[in-house]
Amino acid sequence: MKALYVHGARDLRLADCTAEPPGPGQLRIRMARGGICGSDLHYYAHGGFGPVRLREPMILGHEVAGHVEALGAGVTGFAEGDLVAVSPSRPCGACRQCLAGLPNHCLEMRFYGSAMPMPHIQGAFREVLVAEAAQCVRAEGLTAAEAAMAEPLAVGLHAVNRAGPMLGRRVLVTGCGPIGVLAIMAARAAGAGEIVATDIAAGVLSFAAAAGAARVHDTASDPEALADDCAGKGSFDVLLECSGAAPALALGIAALRPRGVAVQLGLSGDLPVPMMQLTAKEIELRGSFRFHPEFATAVALMQARRIDVGPLLTHSFPLAEHGAAFETALDRSRAMKVQLDFVPC
Amino acid sequence: MKALYVHGARDLRLADCTAEPPGPGQLRIRMARGGICGSDLHYYAHGGFGPVRLREPMILGHEVAGHVEALGAGVTGFAEGDLVAVSPSRPCGACRQCLAGLPNHCLEMRFYGSAMPMPHIQGAFREVLVAEAAQCVRAEGLTAAEAAMAEPLAVGLHAVNRAGPMLGRRVLVTGCGPIGVLAIMAARAAGAGEIVATDIAAGVLSFAAAAGAARVHDTASDPEALADDCAGKGSFDVLLECSGAAPALALGIAALRPRGVAVQLGLSGDLPVPMMQLTAKEIELRGSFRFHPEFATAVALMQARRIDVGPLLTHSFPLAEHGAAFETALDRSRAMKVQLDFVPC
Amino acid sequence: MKALYVHGARDLRLADCTAEPPGPGQLRIRMARGGICGSDLHYYAHGGFGPVRLREPMILGHEVAGHVEALGAGVTGFAEGDLVAVSPSRPCGACRQCLAGLPNHCLEMRFYGSAMPMPHIQGAFREVLVAEAAQCVRAEGLTAAEAAMAEPLAVGLHAVNRAGPMLGRRVLVTGCGPIGVLAIMAARAAGAGEIVATDIAAGVLSFAAAAGAARVHDTASDPEALADDCAGKGSFDVLLECSGAAPALALGIAALRPRGVAVQLGLSGDLPVPMMQLTAKEIELRGSFRFHPEFATAVALMQARRIDVGPLLTHSFPLAEHGAAFETALDRSRAMKVQLDFVPC
Amino acid sequence: MKALYVHGARDLRLADCTAEPPGPGQLRIRMARGGICGSDLHYYAHGGFGPVRLREPMILGHEVAGHVEALGAGVTGFAEGDLVAVSPSRPCGACRQCLAGLPNHCLEMRFYGSAMPMPHIQGAFREVLVAEAAQCVRAEGLTAAEAAMAEPLAVGLHAVNRAGPMLGRRVLVTGCGPIGVLAIMAARAAGAGEIVATDIAAGVLSFAAAAGAARVHDTASDPEALADDCAGKGSFDVLLECSGAAPALALGIAALRPRGVAVQLGLSGDLPVPMMQLTAKEIELRGSFRFHPEFATAVALMQARRIDVGPLLTHSFPLAEHGAAFETALDRSRAMKVQLDFVPC
Repeated sequence: MKALYVHGARDLRLADCTAEPPGPGQLRIRMARGGICGSDLHYYAHGGFGPVRLREPMILGHEVAGHVEALGAGVTGFAEGDLVAVSPSRPCGACRQCLAGLPNHCLEMRFYGSAMPMPHIQGAFREVLVAEAAQCVRAEGLTAAEAAMAEPLAVGLHAVNRAGPMLGRRVLVTGCGPIGVLAIMAARAAGAGEIVATDIAAGVLSFAAAAGAARVHDTASDPEALADDCAGKGSFDVLLECSGAAPALALGIAALRPRGVAVQLGLSGDLPVPMMQLTAKEIELRGSFRFHPEFATAVALMQARRIDVGPLLTHSFPLAEHGAAFETALDRSRAMKVQLDFVPC
Repeated sequence: MKALYVHGARDLRLADCTAEPPGPGQLRIRMARGGICGSDLHYYAHGGFGPVRLREPMILGHEVAGHVEALGAGVTGFAEGDLVAVSPSRPCGACRQCLAGLPNHCLEMRFYGSAMPMPHIQGAFREVLVAEAAQCVRAEGLTAAEAAMAEPLAVGLHAVNRAGPMLGRRVLVTGCGPIGVLAIMAARAAGAGEIVATDIAAGVLSFAAAAGAARVHDTASDPEALADDCAGKGSFDVLLECSGAAPALALGIAALRPRGVAVQLGLSGDLPVPMMQLTAKEIELRGSFRFHPEFATAVALMQARRIDVGPLLTHSFPLAEHGAAFETALDRSRAMKVQLDFVPC
Repeated sequence: MKALYVHGARDLRLADCTAEPPGPGQLRIRMARGGICGSDLHYYAHGGFGPVRLREPMILGHEVAGHVEALGAGVTGFAEGDLVAVSPSRPCGACRQCLAGLPNHCLEMRFYGSAMPMPHIQGAFREVLVAEAAQCVRAEGLTAAEAAMAEPLAVGLHAVNRAGPMLGRRVLVTGCGPIGVLAIMAARAAGAGEIVATDIAAGVLSFAAAAGAARVHDTASDPEALADDCAGKGSFDVLLECSGAAPALALGIAALRPRGVAVQLGLSGDLPVPMMQLTAKEIELRGSFRFHPEFATAVALMQARRIDVGPLLTHSFPLAEHGAAFETALDRSRAMKVQLDFVPC
Repeated sequence: MKALYVHGARDLRLADCTAEPPGPGQLRIRMARGGICGSDLHYYAHGGFGPVRLREPMILGHEVAGHVEALGAGVTGFAEGDLVAVSPSRPCGACRQCLAGLPNHCLEMRFYGSAMPMPHIQGAFREVLVAEAAQCVRAEGLTAAEAAMAEPLAVGLHAVNRAGPMLGRRVLVTGCGPIGVLAIMAARAAGAGEIVATDIAAGVLSFAAAAGAARVHDTASDPEALADDCAGKGSFDVLLECSGAAPALALGIAALRPRGVAVQLGLSGDLPVPMMQLTAKEIELRGSFRFHPEFATAVALMQARRIDVGPLLTHSFPLAEHGAAFETALDRSRAMKVQLDFVPC
């Protein structure tokens, strides 16, 4: 079977890879869909990000869903043919972080498609994947394309959990890429009141509005759009910062009320933070990193039709057209979420 | 009676000021001691800080204690001659912040000695002060010098409250000026386990050690002092950042464990924050601003001898020698806390 | 104009009452709908509850909505003819509870239709009501019947806020009267995962299922219905106890996981609590009392059609038929929510 | 070597027991001191408590300290002769409770001296004990008698952690047996403000006062002692309920302010709870069960002399005089903490 390796910047190669039989507690999965994420794009476009660089060929991909092909010994709760969403998160279950109830901070985490450790953790863009049954969530009622959105949706749900109470709260979302739009959906599913979204690319704001934002603002063309919201020490209860851009974080902190909570999603380098305001308003700036129980929650919310990720699924390409897929995904003006379709026609 | 006005950078003037009779619910206080704080020093040295500039003469001072000289109508719980610590915090009690239980974020706050609003809020460095009884806490058993420390100690206690659970936790304090050392005392009073303190001025570290830090490090001469603490995603539960310096914040975030809490005290301008680590470790960076119930707690903890601020009281000067007092306070190598003595000899 | 007074058990009287002009900051409201609540029923059926007894005639009612008829001086944000939901909660805004951000614990609360203080706080079942504009929330897009549900829905939303995180959590609701069913709707709006509901009256369970409960159980006929949920120290994250019945609380505590949260709504007398389990599983049993910001949230969630209270509105009667209305409301087998219709036909 | 078995009510027997060599990761400990706890007394006096009954002979004891005699393979951080406090808590580290960071709720917990599972978990009153090194905390600087107090002190510290913020808070402790007095010490170490203690046995109140209670009340002779504290919806922030008696819990709830926190320690059967007050004041009643990280904290706080358990150590008896020891411990009027001395003279 084939897997999609990145060898360096703009050097993707489909190569053969051995399909193992499932061991005890494992499932063998015939892959159906795989979404291209920002980190995949960094490896593709730049060969890494920040200090993390490719040092050997690595299979990309961690937003995947497929159908169960075989069950390992002792596996229950699954049947051949089941559609499953596969979590890329594989904590060790034994380190002090895992035993503190923080598996997303596992000291021995094996998260699909990461070049941070050496040897790299191989990813999930392969025609056949053997995974732990504990990573898999049955997704009946969803399309494979939806099921493959469980991972980025879980990122949004985790951010909402990190933010604390949501019911009736005013929420500002800065940055309306896939994660930002999914964060809007997650906030809405958690009962948020008015949601306001900003971006500097006007094109993506319609996705934010469709996802439930009551107001959307292109802060490039209208930098004063939130002036009223910032008056009187600010008025938003929660900021979900999904851009990784310093101006967005600064704007968000200005718009938060005293004791408001800012959640930073996605990874960026050092950012200047308006510390005077953060201190004087006693803002809480909280990092949000991956997810854990939220993966199953993501599947359940989609199954109950309380979250519909459909509008985000703008493009899909057969696995063989991976180059077009990645180039499309790189172009924010055209694409929201691009997926690879693993099923040969 | 006399009050100490600042007219601009290095332009202090003792000037006459009218002593009003106490109105209903008020006390007239014969001032005894007044501590010089960092913001007083900024007005003295630079005529302001950041965008806040002196636009008219302003009485300095907000760390004060004195003796009750007269009671206004309806005041109970005080007697003439009582030593009282006077809180500089005067929230309005009617705005939405006050009604949300956040008086330190009052939209109409009148905090002694602030040039932010115009007209400026006059301060408390005056021989006679009329204050609301609700601002005053009886301080029997303390010296006036100790009572005047209630305000900065309350700042430290508030930061500890902002940090969350303390019992047995490992705490890092970066910056060992008066606020840093008082934060150490506050953390210890709240049951902190091992406390580690850092500064780039070796001279202040002995104060930190005396206050209860198990280890103190001069990170200027020993930049790798916390290397072991940073291993394995970090090990401190809490960071109390009292320096306002970017390298200290970066070091502290590196040394915090996943989900650790960083509390930023004191005001600074924009600071670069290592957002990759903050996000990936899901650090919570919380501002801490002033205090409210902690003012009375500060007096009580000193009275119970559970906190002894004595070692910080390095210098005092008669009011008339205000110039020497401020110059001494500016010199970190010589002075920890410098107080003005209002009692004529 | 007429108001509906209770003089004692089963002694309701429509009597004339003066319609005042609205004062500054007030609205005069032509009442449209008023829901009958459990406390109204206690006054009607028993002349009080527990130690609270009627000592003078009292106007009943606190779940009301109507149309603005006149605006007092200085009122903005409303126009004549607006449909408004009127909150019965009138905290003083000056006591220490109000200043602690806890207006629902106001020491001088004036909540419509309460015989606790003497003189009693008169209620809102009157054809014309003068209320503070701050109590009123515009409800365009809702029917008057829906708007009058804002109050009990706010009780359910407050309970959900008291319960803490909801997104994806397993929630057990015991007692499926109007408050129980509204709590199910509130939990669902806050993103709850599987919701299970129980009652000892099979008839009400269909309302619970329609509101979003995945499973409903008549624990009178099937006392072992939750046996699997109770295995292995229990599995629910949250219990919303809406029955005030000891067996329901005991069952709920048995079904909660360690560190699970039980929220007790509605008032009851002393209840035996299985303290061994509460302690050994470190359950948190939290009271939930009325609401405050949740009143506006209730209106907003209904307006956004994220909560539909329609199915609960089983009966309405013209004001003149108040006797039939109250008798119907007393019969759980027939009625869920009974409202009075104030509009003369 | 000898171990102390309970065969039934008032049937203690010293019997031979094999001393095993320490396995990998284990320590062999020559026992020095063992405190008699309430559950030991229940087995001794009644052969069990509630539904938990002795079904086979069981070694008692779980508050122990001794000296390292031998180290198993791979053990570091200990040396022969070290005094160690031994935690009786042995969670499995693999169940879902352990992986949720809640080892005290382990589904496979092996806590010394418990007749709940069958076969019973044998206890630690033996001359030689083999324990996991991970259960042991070095206790240099302490006496063996103090080190054996780490366990009950950890119970008090855990309760304080469960209670939430302590700095400056008003705390009521009901029940002044050893756990109540240790809870007072723990609350004080965490920065509590005024601590008030009650019991119905006047004799124990002096221990409470010595531990740091500002006021102590014999509520048997003075049932109105807290009347002022109960006024205006109550005034205590925290209740630590250490008696397991319904009147104490009712009094405590009456004395708590709205949103106050009641922590229930120690195990009791069903208790009637004043649910009207709990609900209307939105009290949080939280169970507190055993401890985990607090065991090491207990040792550290004693080592730093921030908690001195010495005054509680009222009696010790040689192991051979176990009968006198248990009878003394049963008599609350004579004994606070009774320990067995394992060192033969």
